[in-house]
Amino acid sequence: MSPLSSSLLNPRLSFSLKPLFLFSQSSFAPRKFQIPRQFVSAKRKTFSALASEQSSATDNGGRSGGGGRSGALSPSPVVEEVQRIDVNPPKGTRDFPPEDMRLRTWLFNHFREVSRLFGFEEVDYPVLESEVLFIRKAGEEIRDQLYCFEDRGNRRVALRPELTPSLARLVIQKGKSLSLPLKWFAIGQCWRYERMTRGRRREHYQWNMDILGLPEVTAEAELISSIVAFFKRIGITESDVGFKVSSRKVLQEVLRCYSVPENLFGKVCIIIDKIEKIPIDEIKRELNATGLSEEAIEELLQVLSIKSLTKLEEILGGAGEAVAELKELFSLAEKFGYSEWIQFDASVVRGLAYYTGIVFEGFDRQGKLRAICGGGRYDRLLSTFGGDDVPACGFGFGDAVIVELLKEKGLLPELNLEVDNIVCALDYDLQGVAAEVATKLREKGQSVDLVLESKPLKWVFKRAARTNVQRLVLVGNTEWQKGMVGVKILSSGEQYEIKLDELE
Amino acid sequence: MSPLSSSLLNPRLSFSLKPLFLFSQSSFAPRKFQIPRQFVSAKRKTFSALASEQSSATDNGGRSGGGGRSGALSPSPVVEEVQRIDVNPPKGTRDFPPEDMRLRTWLFNHFREVSRLFGFEEVDYPVLESEVLFIRKAGEEIRDQLYCFEDRGNRRVALRPELTPSLARLVIQKGKSLSLPLKWFAIGQCWRYERMTRGRRREHYQWNMDILGLPEVTAEAELISSIVAFFKRIGITESDVGFKVSSRKVLQEVLRCYSVPENLFGKVCIIIDKIEKIPIDEIKRELNATGLSEEAIEELLQVLSIKSLTKLEEILGGAGEAVAELKELFSLAEKFGYSEWIQFDASVVRGLAYYTGIVFEGFDRQGKLRAICGGGRYDRLLSTFGGDDVPACGFGFGDAVIVELLKEKGLLPELNLEVDNIVCALDYDLQGVAAEVATKLREKGQSVDLVLESKPLKWVFKRAARTNVQRLVLVGNTEWQKGMVGVKILSSGEQYEIKLDELE
Repeated sequence: MSPLSSSLLNPRLSFSLKPLFLFSQSSFAPRKFQIPRQFVSAKRKTFSALASEQSSATDNGGRSGGGGRSGALSPSPVVEEVQRIDVNPPKGTRDFPPEDMRLRTWLFNHFREVSRLFGFEEVDYPVLESEVLFIRKAGEEIRDQLYCFEDRGNRRVALRPELTPSLARLVIQKGKSLSLPLKWFAIGQCWRYERMTRGRRREHYQWNMDILGLPEVTAEAELISSIVAFFKRIGITESDVGFKVSSRKVLQEVLRCYSVPENLFGKVCIIIDKIEKIPIDEIKRELNATGLSEEAIEELLQVLSIKSLTKLEEILGGAGEAVAELKELFSLAEKFGYSEWIQFDASVVRGLAYYTGIVFEGFDRQGKLRAICGGGRYDRLLSTFGGDDVPACGFGFGDAVIVELLKEKGLLPELNLEVDNIVCALDYDLQGVAAEVATKLREKGQSVDLVLESKPLKWVFKRAARTNVQRLVLVGNTEWQKGMVGVKILSSGEQYEIKLDELE
Repeated sequence: MSPLSSSLLNPRLSFSLKPLFLFSQSSFAPRKFQIPRQFVSAKRKTFSALASEQSSATDNGGRSGGGGRSGALSPSPVVEEVQRIDVNPPKGTRDFPPEDMRLRTWLFNHFREVSRLFGFEEVDYPVLESEVLFIRKAGEEIRDQLYCFEDRGNRRVALRPELTPSLARLVIQKGKSLSLPLKWFAIGQCWRYERMTRGRRREHYQWNMDILGLPEVTAEAELISSIVAFFKRIGITESDVGFKVSSRKVLQEVLRCYSVPENLFGKVCIIIDKIEKIPIDEIKRELNATGLSEEAIEELLQVLSIKSLTKLEEILGGAGEAVAELKELFSLAEKFGYSEWIQFDASVVRGLAYYTGIVFEGFDRQGKLRAICGGGRYDRLLSTFGGDDVPACGFGFGDAVIVELLKEKGLLPELNLEVDNIVCALDYDLQGVAAEVATKLREKGQSVDLVLESKPLKWVFKRAARTNVQRLVLVGNTEWQKGMVGVKILSSGEQYEIKLDELE
């Protein structure tokens, strides 16, 4: 479900695209509202600098606020000597200025369009949930890094680290009114809190698609197909990205051989998920601590190294569900047309305790980046919340690693502000007429950047260049007396006068 | 900027549209994953019931979690006896199941499209900000109801109650790299915390549009024009909704006559904003407590009762900025074509301390609802954060009251899931072929609900009706041997066979 734990491991991304045409308007500005020079070089700080700045900002806030929220008489801050606040967003979070927002919108639109093509319906849940929804006892990273706190009414709440538990909650709540299988998607911000300061982010957006009510492996096949469709749309190919696929049932069958109790399963999976992050001896020690024998551990580690389904079948035999389901998935992949994208890899278990069957993970073939997305089957999540189980699977796809990958591959789109018209009065007395012209065009569905002040034409052209305007509409006295306005098509330089009514 | 304080005063809205075609699939379901009966009647609870349920759910969470996050060995929750969690979202928050999400998307799309037509660029900020950003000392409701807490690193943070302070922070940060005037919009979730339990919501979404860098009243005129454009798009007319407009400078001029210190200005405005909510004697007492003489208070209250610009000019004289700016705004409104929508009303001051000039508020003419939106000029906000001031104005438009209004007027859109195709294999062995068909159609931009399991045709037709499918594509053995699939157009009943390659 959630690639949060992996995607957030990446250093903070700079989403910035190519700088826009920037220009100063100071030479034309009739009034003074200078922004002080020191801001010009106020680039993003390093994380440690940011942290120390932040704590001092908080201190100031505490002092000047005086801890009181009584509304008692005190002078307005407007006339006080004011210390400058920290102008950066809180540590680990992002602002989305226009250029970054365009990229986010582009990405989300692709998420939405793919989900629509697959017949999925969009849903959302509160970003703030009861902490109890995320408390699982398998030692998951996601649980340890819960962004939790006590609210003013002393309730334990948390900023959601993932979307799946909220989905489960809503499905239990809706009960029989839902018609299964349900196919839902969501794009939501997820949070984590961790103390380390190596530039990790504390929030990311995650695209989720989930199918509930289907025990068949066709559900997993459909979900992977949707991710492949997404990659293709944005120019990523099977030589850039692959999916490692396995099943938790592989582990389950091995553990069963060694009579390991069922209730240790989630815990063992979480330990195994850390194989590439911590030394193998540590893994063995942790597995041993759960009660696994050394023999079982060795066998387990050997099975996990298998990269071929045929080999797996040799070892586990053909009778188990693990092999049968994996074989079916690979057969369906052929029909869906994404065989080239997927490969069996027994070491994939994913870092969430609730997975029960097939698990998969999108990875970059150059091996530079963390998992791009991940998911799997979680047939028993609802009963952990006291509901009746419904077969379920889904995936989470973060907004961080994919942008790194696009950057790496030179596939980041160039997204610019694009406005259809700039409308400008040549005289401040004609401002009202310009407003009339703008309103007429907007009613026809044309976007208009209306110049709301008196500016020289040179300034207007510069602004038009920055906003990629197609057409300049000028309202001048001479023309307007004839009910006409001046038009200049900026791409061709074509220029003419036209009656306002005829302006389309 | 923020209609949060008013729009959240409304009782929780049920966003639900007409119920969808619901049908049980139990008779066809090959496996059992029953959802227990008690969920069927699990309708939304009243707020008080919800509150008590919630606290007990939290208690359970506390118990079963044992307070420990150590990851120590403990049995997996899967096999434990599990108490059912509270299936409702946290008090005062909403889930967005598909039908509610469709309405939210519809609303946001109109916000976005209007903003685009006016040449505004979308931005966003973290939902979690440093508390210090929202600490103002004028006794605002928004400040008293700050959803604030201490994070795990002991920093004072808050879920944003409004978007404007974040905008100001980002503008100070970007400094000279921004080209003015900037025209930005945002749609963000805002939060408040209050202890009262009369069904108020603790979160809402707010559409903001802001213009920075323009001291002229053309900016306010443009902003009101954009809200009018929004209303028109969704079918709201000037007989449904109006704007009350005034200027903080009216108050300022009165206060100046009585030599009231400048630094009391914000505080006085906040008190006056409560005029319709608390008894007039209480207002007088509070004003008196700030140091205003009784004479000043009487004069102030008299001026606030003025509903005509001519009358205002008689009292304040024609020389002040207040009258001049208001007159210009009304003159521009004529040119923009929304004269019928606006009226002068001196009692409008809005509930935020930072407004400095024109303020306005959208209201329903039947007087049943709270303010629909509100905004104004805030030329001195940036200096309260230690930045240099930039002339600025903007508005906030919540997602709650507008939906109530649309409901009231019978203008809520009927929004249904609409899928182009449902693709179904008549035999489970043909599931792969159905996948191939679905993939082909999706690559052509067609949305497909692929039936991922073996279901009787009757079930498929019911699902097609629920999802408003246009075309049913059936994959049967006989046809597929000829490379063909069966098609049924559901609106006309037309039926034919077609080669897969020819299916568009």
